[in-house]
Amino acid sequence: MQINSMTAAALHINADRLHADFEELAAIGGTPEHGVNRLALSLEDIQARAWFADKLDAAGLSIRDDDAANLSGVLPALDPEAKTLLIGSHLDSVPNGGRYDGALGVLAGLEVLRTIKEAELALPFHLEVIDFTDDEGCWKSLFGARAFGGMFTPRDVIDIIANNGSFVAALRRAGVINPRAVLSARRDPAQLAGYLELHIEQGQRLEREGIQIGVVTGIVGRKRYDVTFYGQAGHSGTTDMYKRRDALRGAAQFIVRAHDLVRERFGDGIFNCGDITVKPGMFNIIPSEARLVVEIRHVDEQLMADMEREIISIAKQCAASTGLEREPTFTVVTHMPAAKMEDSLIRAFEDSCQRLGVSHKRLVSYAGHSSQILSQIMPCGMIFIPSVGGISHHPSEFSRWEDVVSGANVLLHTTLALGGVSTS
Amino acid sequence: MQINSMTAAALHINADRLHADFEELAAIGGTPEHGVNRLALSLEDIQARAWFADKLDAAGLSIRDDDAANLSGVLPALDPEAKTLLIGSHLDSVPNGGRYDGALGVLAGLEVLRTIKEAELALPFHLEVIDFTDDEGCWKSLFGARAFGGMFTPRDVIDIIANNGSFVAALRRAGVINPRAVLSARRDPAQLAGYLELHIEQGQRLEREGIQIGVVTGIVGRKRYDVTFYGQAGHSGTTDMYKRRDALRGAAQFIVRAHDLVRERFGDGIFNCGDITVKPGMFNIIPSEARLVVEIRHVDEQLMADMEREIISIAKQCAASTGLEREPTFTVVTHMPAAKMEDSLIRAFEDSCQRLGVSHKRLVSYAGHSSQILSQIMPCGMIFIPSVGGISHHPSEFSRWEDVVSGANVLLHTTLALGGVSTS
Repeated sequence: MQINSMTAAALHINADRLHADFEELAAIGGTPEHGVNRLALSLEDIQARAWFADKLDAAGLSIRDDDAANLSGVLPALDPEAKTLLIGSHLDSVPNGGRYDGALGVLAGLEVLRTIKEAELALPFHLEVIDFTDDEGCWKSLFGARAFGGMFTPRDVIDIIANNGSFVAALRRAGVINPRAVLSARRDPAQLAGYLELHIEQGQRLEREGIQIGVVTGIVGRKRYDVTFYGQAGHSGTTDMYKRRDALRGAAQFIVRAHDLVRERFGDGIFNCGDITVKPGMFNIIPSEARLVVEIRHVDEQLMADMEREIISIAKQCAASTGLEREPTFTVVTHMPAAKMEDSLIRAFEDSCQRLGVSHKRLVSYAGHSSQILSQIMPCGMIFIPSVGGISHHPSEFSRWEDVVSGANVLLHTTLALGGVSTS
Repeated sequence: MQINSMTAAALHINADRLHADFEELAAIGGTPEHGVNRLALSLEDIQARAWFADKLDAAGLSIRDDDAANLSGVLPALDPEAKTLLIGSHLDSVPNGGRYDGALGVLAGLEVLRTIKEAELALPFHLEVIDFTDDEGCWKSLFGARAFGGMFTPRDVIDIIANNGSFVAALRRAGVINPRAVLSARRDPAQLAGYLELHIEQGQRLEREGIQIGVVTGIVGRKRYDVTFYGQAGHSGTTDMYKRRDALRGAAQFIVRAHDLVRERFGDGIFNCGDITVKPGMFNIIPSEARLVVEIRHVDEQLMADMEREIISIAKQCAASTGLEREPTFTVVTHMPAAKMEDSLIRAFEDSCQRLGVSHKRLVSYAGHSSQILSQIMPCGMIFIPSVGGISHHPSEFSRWEDVVSGANVLLHTTLALGGVSTS
């Protein structure tokens, strides 16, 4: 059934219903500080999933789950052979987190499906709203999306079963009785049309410029290292200042210069040294070792590689200029490559904003999201709504309700446009 | 009895006897790595004290101890009203320390007294060789010297009794049955002629210049601080690099600039940041707090104060230039003022070196010693002998035996000169 463009253009999500859903969900694992504690596969998360399944059922959507505990509701196309367009995010939270992160993307997706179903619009793809398991990495970062994307090997699964009994127990609690079946959560990319996600920005760029929608062009790559500087212990009082090999002095120079480098030469790059451990750590002994926890992020893999090379070079220079004889070592702990959002989806989001009179700008995501994984198997598109004060992963995380509604309507109209329903 | 100058000039300590003593003492608490483990008031230290008392007894010296467990042997002057010239150091060691630090000063003092006694020289002062309790600060830094100098208040003693049961037990083990009596270890300055100490340099200045004796002109003052930089935690990925308040970035700048300041502007000063603790200490969270353990040393109290002022000023500048809103805090943990050695004793040591044909130079001690306390109540003089490789507080601590013998002879001849026995 095809409706006329006037009708489609007037279509909006049901803001009151979305708000009621939001409040109900926020109460599950709700904390006295108005945040939520809903760790992946915890009792609170299981309760949220049950609540979500009820909502899918009530909306007349078919419930689907897989062996990675991803949970979705499907609005089928007329053609059973059609591809699937996914919309979603995650219901889990970080410990003592906020009510918006993740939850909003799932609820907006649900509301889009309900709105389209109620309008009886026929789209050329199955629509599926999905909650991806453990986005926040309580057990394994982006677990559900990785399983969905077929990123796990049999060895990964054996490793989980052998070494992570509590994770296995949590999966069983969520209905994944046989954890070996995690591999079967993989979906065939040939059957997937794409993935859309609405999320809070977790930054202040939109708020500062008074813009309603951020259209994400890419997600930064992340690389985490253990960096160790090696010096030589000695009596801090009697060793000549010019003869010292002070590992912490070298490390401090490195921290200063790496920050300066990224600010001056890599405008979109991020450098963080989040922790440092000194040996032997005595007030009167020259530090013999300084071990740093370092993370770099960049949206462009080539620039990320350039930045990494220069940071390693600076570390060597700092060690040499402070008299350290041994070169510092860099051990890669994790590497999550940068992801590009699909150009056609970026433009589709922008066109919808334009038609709806919603202000928008392109930006990069400095936080990780499931589309970082999913963009390897299908086109992905993502929009941000403003985070007040940029605060996230904290009970005071907040977005204005009118921004939530605008975002959900952009999601709706982008979905319609992708489905060929003219709304102009 | 007065001897002629020819006889006195020919007087030397008995190097073989000193060496035998050294080997016997080094075996007490000796470790497989040829170091010693003789923590103050440990069973090993008690054993060393018993050995020392036996040696004093065998040498015909009168044994004296006090309620701070200081242990000494006295060679009395003819006049019972004479003042006392002390010579000594300490028998305790740091954990897994070396065989020379402290031990040498006590043994050289013992050898000086024995040599003078055997030569039947009459001096115008009582001579007392002394082992000061807990120089290394296993329980309380320079405990014996402080008690001797009358630096403890009744409140200090009550504090030890109330809060440090294992220290009280250790004192009892060493024969101090009533710890309240620690205050009575104070000696009347009017009865004291001065204090001489021979020690290893614990640095490389003498060795580098091929000089046999360092005549100490002063001992550096030490000030230890807890320095805290305050930032603001935030998601390291999503917070704009230019908006960060990264406590560790400020602290790193401070470490770099404080090192540079001391090197460039305070040639004799020492700066050490020996440890740093970061909160919350996560790879993906901007550090909200960095707490540094900082120590500065300078031989000149005025320059120490200037250095302190500039270091605090640099810390504030670093906090401001990295966007930290709150000023860093400096909490003084310990302050040991600088000490000047007595001019007349410096010259007396130099004259003895001259007469004995021993090369010498003046230098400053960057390590703490008991004369830092004792110089507040009587004239103090100190000489260093070379430390091979500058290594100390380590089993591989080593001094050439000919340097030990030269040092002991300089100590002997300085004592004779102070006693008016012409040796030229």
